[in-house]
Amino acid sequence: MIRSALFLSACALAFAAAPATADEGMWTFDNFPTAKMKADYGWAPDQAWLNRVQNGAVRLTGGCSASFVSPQGLILTNHHCIASCLYDNSTAATDYLDRGFVAARRDLELKCPGQQAEVVTRISDVTNDVKASFGSFTGEALTKARDAKIAEIEKAGCTDTATTRCQVVTLFGGGQYKLYQYRKYSDVRLAWAPEDRAATFGGDPDNFNFPRYSLDASFLRAYENGQPVSTPNHLKWNPRPPKEGETTFVVGNPGSTSRLYTSSQLAFTREVALPVTVATTSELRGRLIRAMQESPDRQREGLDTLNGIENSLKVYIGQSKALNDPAFTGKLAAAEADLRAKGAGGADPWTTVDTAVAAYRPLYLAQRFTQPSSQLYSYARTLVFAAQERAKPNAERLPGYTDSALPLLEKRTLDARPVYPWLEELRLNWSLSKVREYLGADDPDTQLLLGKASPEGLATSLVNGTKLADPAVRKALWDGGMKAIRASDDPMIVYALRLADRQRELQRATETVYGAPLAIAGSQLADARFAAYGDSAYPDATFSLRISYGKVAGWMERGKQVPFQTTLGGTFDRATGSEPFDAPSAFLANKAKIDPRATYDFVTTNDIIGGNSGSPVIDRAGTVIGAAFDGNIHSLGGTYGYDGTLNRTVVVSTDAVQEALEKIYPAPALVKELAAK
Amino acid sequence: MIRSALFLSACALAFAAAPATADEGMWTFDNFPTAKMKADYGWAPDQAWLNRVQNGAVRLTGGCSASFVSPQGLILTNHHCIASCLYDNSTAATDYLDRGFVAARRDLELKCPGQQAEVVTRISDVTNDVKASFGSFTGEALTKARDAKIAEIEKAGCTDTATTRCQVVTLFGGGQYKLYQYRKYSDVRLAWAPEDRAATFGGDPDNFNFPRYSLDASFLRAYENGQPVSTPNHLKWNPRPPKEGETTFVVGNPGSTSRLYTSSQLAFTREVALPVTVATTSELRGRLIRAMQESPDRQREGLDTLNGIENSLKVYIGQSKALNDPAFTGKLAAAEADLRAKGAGGADPWTTVDTAVAAYRPLYLAQRFTQPSSQLYSYARTLVFAAQERAKPNAERLPGYTDSALPLLEKRTLDARPVYPWLEELRLNWSLSKVREYLGADDPDTQLLLGKASPEGLATSLVNGTKLADPAVRKALWDGGMKAIRASDDPMIVYALRLADRQRELQRATETVYGAPLAIAGSQLADARFAAYGDSAYPDATFSLRISYGKVAGWMERGKQVPFQTTLGGTFDRATGSEPFDAPSAFLANKAKIDPRATYDFVTTNDIIGGNSGSPVIDRAGTVIGAAFDGNIHSLGGTYGYDGTLNRTVVVSTDAVQEALEKIYPAPALVKELAAK
Repeated sequence: MIRSALFLSACALAFAAAPATADEGMWTFDNFPTAKMKADYGWAPDQAWLNRVQNGAVRLTGGCSASFVSPQGLILTNHHCIASCLYDNSTAATDYLDRGFVAARRDLELKCPGQQAEVVTRISDVTNDVKASFGSFTGEALTKARDAKIAEIEKAGCTDTATTRCQVVTLFGGGQYKLYQYRKYSDVRLAWAPEDRAATFGGDPDNFNFPRYSLDASFLRAYENGQPVSTPNHLKWNPRPPKEGETTFVVGNPGSTSRLYTSSQLAFTREVALPVTVATTSELRGRLIRAMQESPDRQREGLDTLNGIENSLKVYIGQSKALNDPAFTGKLAAAEADLRAKGAGGADPWTTVDTAVAAYRPLYLAQRFTQPSSQLYSYARTLVFAAQERAKPNAERLPGYTDSALPLLEKRTLDARPVYPWLEELRLNWSLSKVREYLGADDPDTQLLLGKASPEGLATSLVNGTKLADPAVRKALWDGGMKAIRASDDPMIVYALRLADRQRELQRATETVYGAPLAIAGSQLADARFAAYGDSAYPDATFSLRISYGKVAGWMERGKQVPFQTTLGGTFDRATGSEPFDAPSAFLANKAKIDPRATYDFVTTNDIIGGNSGSPVIDRAGTVIGAAFDGNIHSLGGTYGYDGTLNRTVVVSTDAVQEALEKIYPAPALVKELAAK
Repeated sequence: MIRSALFLSACALAFAAAPATADEGMWTFDNFPTAKMKADYGWAPDQAWLNRVQNGAVRLTGGCSASFVSPQGLILTNHHCIASCLYDNSTAATDYLDRGFVAARRDLELKCPGQQAEVVTRISDVTNDVKASFGSFTGEALTKARDAKIAEIEKAGCTDTATTRCQVVTLFGGGQYKLYQYRKYSDVRLAWAPEDRAATFGGDPDNFNFPRYSLDASFLRAYENGQPVSTPNHLKWNPRPPKEGETTFVVGNPGSTSRLYTSSQLAFTREVALPVTVATTSELRGRLIRAMQESPDRQREGLDTLNGIENSLKVYIGQSKALNDPAFTGKLAAAEADLRAKGAGGADPWTTVDTAVAAYRPLYLAQRFTQPSSQLYSYARTLVFAAQERAKPNAERLPGYTDSALPLLEKRTLDARPVYPWLEELRLNWSLSKVREYLGADDPDTQLLLGKASPEGLATSLVNGTKLADPAVRKALWDGGMKAIRASDDPMIVYALRLADRQRELQRATETVYGAPLAIAGSQLADARFAAYGDSAYPDATFSLRISYGKVAGWMERGKQVPFQTTLGGTFDRATGSEPFDAPSAFLANKAKIDPRATYDFVTTNDIIGGNSGSPVIDRAGTVIGAAFDGNIHSLGGTYGYDGTLNRTVVVSTDAVQEALEKIYPAPALVKELAAK
């Protein structure tokens, strides 16, 4: 799975890219490298082709990508992108995650809590406006002025907040600011999903590996006013096998890359952030694995969380391996040396970044560990911060709480979702114990978070005492604002309020020592790159719409050629009978009907990253031939750099999905809908 | 706790040291730096003093140090060194670990399974003999010839295997080989231990930290023929507070350091070994923490294992931090550059090591993960290997199975110890799942270990099916040799036999590409250091007897002076009422009697490492004023280098132990015995 892994969000200000190598690049639609692609492939799409594809591309706010594939709002994405929807709709009696879901009729499609689908309708350059707001400010004043300008632009850009959303996207680490306008669909429902084992065959061991036998696909549908929306600009569904070597495009929303972090940012990530992340996440994984063995209910209730944790952990470990590989980091250092040699017009952004990173280091552990981990705590924190921020004018609020951001935040906070107390307690207990471990028992922040309580005791009392699992309670607190928050005796609200001042203080300190210097240095570095390499560069990923070109191709692994595709029949050969290599039950039941030679999954050279999950894989004709759902193991270093000889995108073919729709998890209505002209 | 953390044993061949800075050094008794200490301290012990101290120093084969402190075989060590003895003797009805143990009479002292006490009686130089055995061999032939010579020397050195033990110790990474002869006592019993909370107050959060409030002390007694042994050469018990600045000696068995690893060995450790170790150990910790919450029985049964895991993990994380600190590694690189500049008499051992490390890298994961983790599996593996090796002549056996090594191995394998199936299953399941994760589902080694089974399924069937928890079954297999092993249908024996060939193959490959080149390079590096710096160097730690000198002193932490001691009364101030900061029940019960100003724990500049746990802390007069039980957080980098401004040994004072013996966990007979002239 290639879930968006944005764990380093405090440091995720990205840098403008150096010239891209073959097939490298996550390009914005307003700067497609037509000449470069023509040189490499002898052909490139024209503007009409690009416009058509852009109009069919969907962003899912849960952290995935997708595409419209019928005129009635049908959306193709990955199974792992909608697993939480299955999970939220499941009970012990009806475990949709385990057995899959096919809506017998449209009106039986399942609402997906917190999910929203968005289509880019316009991109406009607001760089000058935003940069002008910096004036001669420094420190927190600078980031405040910038954020106020962004809030103003976003608010002015989308007056109809019911159907549109505006976001200013920071590109090239502050070299450019672009306003993205979206048509949004906030009622998203599930139409079809295979059984879990079909999507997750091979489980964590096979995740980020290939050859692969995974039906990581599903269909959603966008609704408005209780009706499927009309989507005439959909992409064409093309259920055919890929051809080795054919050109492919991946269109989606890569979440976050750090390809041109300066050396001090990479060093901080390698030396501090990743080791802490891997150690603490591994322990959480262990606690959850064991807890899930305690009962079938816990097995079901914890699965979605565990899948997310294991996926992220594999990413972190892959990133750590990349940054601990001197050959890999040597290339990054050479790229930096080349740019430094060309200079930044008298400025020295590298030293600015070095200083900022050094100043951020002592803040890191405190900032990281003063944010307890639990769904219920997150609700409380959001309710507290939203109440505090909404009391201020739009331009003075923290970025996540401006008028343009509030509708989705409100939806996410108030949508009904199941909450499992045992799981909440487990996460909260774990995260509080890490506070004490990493900050020390005598640290003032540990005292603030724990007082005289133990992590176990505090987690139990907060989870048992809070009523925030009830959406009506959350709604009353959201609607009631600061008055309701202050009057609340809900222990989780009281706790979130107790932590809020310190969290703000740390956030301000981070903006001052890191965010503000980086806003300036990022802009200088971007200008240096534009001067050195022209506009033949792509910005680091920012979970905004991008297009990548490449081709269907295997790769050489320790002297052996890895084939470019697998077949449905291969599933039966790989199955061992033991989880997670047990063949999906519907595969076994329908074995005689399934075409064993049908292409199952395939790999391409497209350059992707977490957040691209569910992206349509598109051929020259502009038709959809698959959904990207993973990268191979080498792609885990893709956060920092792309290597075309090794990095691969893993795709589930439309050929396999069509076979599944017809024979394995039959959905005749969808088959008909997808085939309609 | 400073348990011996020998996890990198495959690479733990250590290198000769550069000149030691003030207070740095784990010196052998045959090369005490008298002149250097006199220069630093104006005084140094004479040979009679050194001999006296050596005769009272005890090694505990469980991985700790200790000292005789009465003429009747009474041994002072740490509580955490005997926790497993309490644990092995506990049941749900009598939880000695929780409540502590005071033997009402000598004949009620508790036998400690697997434990053996050893006193060095003679050290002789066998360097020429061992080096001559290399001949012109290379690769595996070289290490075989060396190991055969060592087996021969050890066998010849100790003909009375009932009361003596011989070990050839490799010093300076192969620069010297010394024969250590020990008087051994294989019947060791527990006389006194405080309640667990007194020893572990502050738990994992306070471990490796100071100020500290820990009664990490206990008393064992050596027996022979059912009677306490006579130990006229014991050290004198001196229950007095330490004086700030006074000279202290720590005498014990530091387990393993890597202070003069070459840069490529350090890089491998930082880039590969430590990240894998921290991630996998963290997950095991999480699984165990959660499992222990499932019932009070599991809480008790898992505690000793969890303490060991958390202690090791803190060491690994501290080592990782040290090796990810450019200021720290810069000093190591400077030391290497200095030696390289002086040269190695035409040889180039550094390149030899680089090549050996590069050749070992691809073997590492396979070697690491083909060793499943479980007590029952370890029994099976030992029984299989011992049977196979004992069938060969002494000189042809693997090092751990020579005649000199067999008595302790047999004792450890056959001593009765409780085995908890749930804990066995947990560890085995975890370790098998890591095989698949790190080697990949399709790897031949994964296939060998798992076949078509899942980690969960295989762990359950092996643990449920084996009878090896029964010492009589183990004894029958030990005594029956290969015939009994081959005839056994015990699934764990069958499994261990199935893995043995591959384990041997990997061990041979490691010897060939790493062990043999390192034997040569280590010798060359040691010679280069002797040539450059004379004999003012100490060898890396090898769990053999050493002496360190230093003084009682606090240190500066972020601009603040950390005091050199704590008092018993401070315990009550620090207690929160929540685990692990709940005051020990006997402290609360006896608060009125306890002298609040009595020194509890204190810190010294002595240079120690895991394995030194339980070491007597000795004053100029040669009397015991404490037992070393920990290092401060800075000492975790001590594996690679010592910094006298920061590294500290943490000691429980005899003053506090005496107070405990008299008032908190009363043991009047011991008080009398310790006071006897």
